Amino acid sequence: MDDILGRKQSILIADVLLNGKIADIFVKDDGIIGATGDGIRREYKGEAEVIIDGDGAVALPGLINTHSHAAMSLLRGYADDMVLQDWLSQKIWPLEANLTPDDVYWGTKLACLEMIKSGTVAFNDMYFMMEDAARAVDEAGIRATLSYGFIDLFSAEKREAECKATENLVRHIRTMNNPRIRSAVGPHAIYTVSKEGLQWCADFAAREKIGIHIHLSETEKEVNDCIVRYGKRPAFLLDECGILTPHTVSAHCCWLDETECVLLGKRGVSVSHNPSSNMKLATNRAMPYPWLKAAGTNVCLGTDGCASNNNLDMLRETKTAALLQKFFWNDPTTLPAHEALSVATVHGAKGLGLSTGILVSGAPADIILVSARAASNTPHHNAISNLVYSCCGGDVLTTICDGRILMHDRQVRDEGMIVAQAATAAEELVQRTQSA
Amino acid sequence: MDDILGRKQSILIADVLLNGKIADIFVKDDGIIGATGDGIRREYKGEAEVIIDGDGAVALPGLINTHSHAAMSLLRGYADDMVLQDWLSQKIWPLEANLTPDDVYWGTKLACLEMIKSGTVAFNDMYFMMEDAARAVDEAGIRATLSYGFIDLFSAEKREAECKATENLVRHIRTMNNPRIRSAVGPHAIYTVSKEGLQWCADFAAREKIGIHIHLSETEKEVNDCIVRYGKRPAFLLDECGILTPHTVSAHCCWLDETECVLLGKRGVSVSHNPSSNMKLATNRAMPYPWLKAAGTNVCLGTDGCASNNNLDMLRETKTAALLQKFFWNDPTTLPAHEALSVATVHGAKGLGLSTGILVSGAPADIILVSARAASNTPHHNAISNLVYSCCGGDVLTTICDGRILMHDRQVRDEGMIVAQAATAAEELVQRTQSA
Repeated sequence: MDDILGRKQSILIADVLLNGKIADIFVKDDGIIGATGDGIRREYKGEAEVIIDGDGAVALPGLINTHSHAAMSLLRGYADDMVLQDWLSQKIWPLEANLTPDDVYWGTKLACLEMIKSGTVAFNDMYFMMEDAARAVDEAGIRATLSYGFIDLFSAEKREAECKATENLVRHIRTMNNPRIRSAVGPHAIYTVSKEGLQWCADFAAREKIGIHIHLSETEKEVNDCIVRYGKRPAFLLDECGILTPHTVSAHCCWLDETECVLLGKRGVSVSHNPSSNMKLATNRAMPYPWLKAAGTNVCLGTDGCASNNNLDMLRETKTAALLQKFFWNDPTTLPAHEALSVATVHGAKGLGLSTGILVSGAPADIILVSARAASNTPHHNAISNLVYSCCGGDVLTTICDGRILMHDRQVRDEGMIVAQAATAAEELVQRTQSA
Repeated sequence: MDDILGRKQSILIADVLLNGKIADIFVKDDGIIGATGDGIRREYKGEAEVIIDGDGAVALPGLINTHSHAAMSLLRGYADDMVLQDWLSQKIWPLEANLTPDDVYWGTKLACLEMIKSGTVAFNDMYFMMEDAARAVDEAGIRATLSYGFIDLFSAEKREAECKATENLVRHIRTMNNPRIRSAVGPHAIYTVSKEGLQWCADFAAREKIGIHIHLSETEKEVNDCIVRYGKRPAFLLDECGILTPHTVSAHCCWLDETECVLLGKRGVSVSHNPSSNMKLATNRAMPYPWLKAAGTNVCLGTDGCASNNNLDMLRETKTAALLQKFFWNDPTTLPAHEALSVATVHGAKGLGLSTGILVSGAPADIILVSARAASNTPHHNAISNLVYSCCGGDVLTTICDGRILMHDRQVRDEGMIVAQAATAAEELVQRTQSA
């Protein structure tokens, strides 16, 4: 098994369901899809170093998680069922104050493992000590866009340090020279970053030609405070600071009004929907998908961090998105299965500026195979419906990213070691915090 | 593997996490838990016919699904994202009109397989051709309370046939003499059953000393129509007909008002929450958990049928319940993890009159083991939080019901055959419907 995991190699995936038809997929040894179609196995059998028997599995572009704080996997289950402010100040922040670079490394390793096991091939992450997150992603074999969470708390002194930290991360990732790993600028939110900070982030992102990752209108309080402080709604403030661009991913967006949705559509901003987190923390409003869709905004999907979800399973999140949108907007036709699956795949790829998210010749080989033999994927009336409404990450058998097989028959390299090390790191983190 | 699956035998489960402590569990060969505790393996090692290495897994009472239409697993993915009335009249009913007893058998087989694979040991089912569902449950090894969906459409003639069908099922199940399989009376809902029909059901259930299973206040229309037709809200109508008893499970209950919640509490009725179905079909209101809890009602959990969920994974449903309640009632402290887990286990057992739902000496050995090595169950700050918010059915390794091991290391007897036969039955059902 270890022979075929992790290496770049030519791969023939035989007998899968691709866009509703039986097909084979040939992946060249440069990590690009060479051909797809029924019966192409005859042509490529000799050329392929590895042959995977798809056994009728559904082939899908790898899932794209457009909003996460991967290292927070170490905080999974540490505190739940609390009011936001208590949860943050009594539980999350004290633990985070004791996080070490090694914790971020092992937390991100655990998160990458969980993502590979549930079919995610790329994620958009904001946290700190991101150099250590980058090391974990490099080893894991998936794609990530990493941003340092820029929080100046309206202080000029702190701002300078945050600019420095942002510059350092961007420089570091450039030095890594790994095409799977990109950097972005991560102004945390309008209630933690000054206008000057936001403007610096926008300028720096434009100068470096990298993306922006920000939290936007997660709570009603954020909107009300913004109107009091700035006399305008959050999206208009961000626009004034240059933050709204076609390379910007704004997470949550529960409390946008219709004019803000139109503005985001006009600026080409991507919106990351985080339904589980919004429900768990009771934001009291669902991201306005119908308005964002009407405005032509690129809506994609994210899990948020494990402290507020508490998993990274994008198939589960896709269902939660489809269900929450129907329920909140009181219309069972809202966010139908095929749209929900696009939100989790090709829209996510667009949001992160990736050419993946679609399985065609010439596209990167970011491919997952979902078992057609699972009870939850039976019968086979509609593969897309089954994927969105019935299956979950555990039904993914194979995860391929950039032409490398990262999971086969649900086996991932070093899984036991990663789980054990992350569990130990989390335990020690709590001990350090409690004895501090 | 086949040696240990399905037989009644004495079992020692060594090294599990039970109520937060490392423990062993000894199951006697009569299907009853003989002892639990740390280190009891020394005492019972010699006596046990089978020893399971728990490997630190979390031991939990098997999950109880209190509202399902199991055979509808054959309709999974056949139609989604539609308005309720179109969905029923254009898609679901035409297919159901072509269902055969064999379809109900294979659909229920598939559903039982899915339930075993996701840790459910008992379910409360309403459908038709239930003699064939009973055959499937008998073979599967889990528990079920089966009711014939009584629908008289306000016609005296039809009512007579429904009474007959109900009596026949109850008699049939009594003849089976399988303590795992019980019958209940299943008046479908107030908008499909006349007052006379409801009264007959209540009388018959009392006479036969069996439970009642009914849909209640799923939609606002049901409430409004009831007020027009009867001049009172649905729960009060049911009370008048004698339907509200301590042996009644009422499903959905989205549109109950506070006085109805108090009435249900007073009568000792169990309420089955079905959050995924309610969200997917856009009922526009969540079951009022805070009011029902305050009224002392026994709230339990169900998946509803696969046409409206579309899976039977009770751990996923538990999370959806906790999230929906927080979101709808705008309070992140509503339905916390430990309550949600009780709703899915011991409350469900109470609703179905089972003595399972708790792992203590003398209780039936309905036990599931959830992997402690899964990425989604790491780290181990809080086992209950992980179970409710992070894990899913796929993390269940072992399912034991009535002292029989039904799944071990995720292997279930005849899985491939059941999936294949159910897939074929579903395909042929669609063909029959389309050519009819």
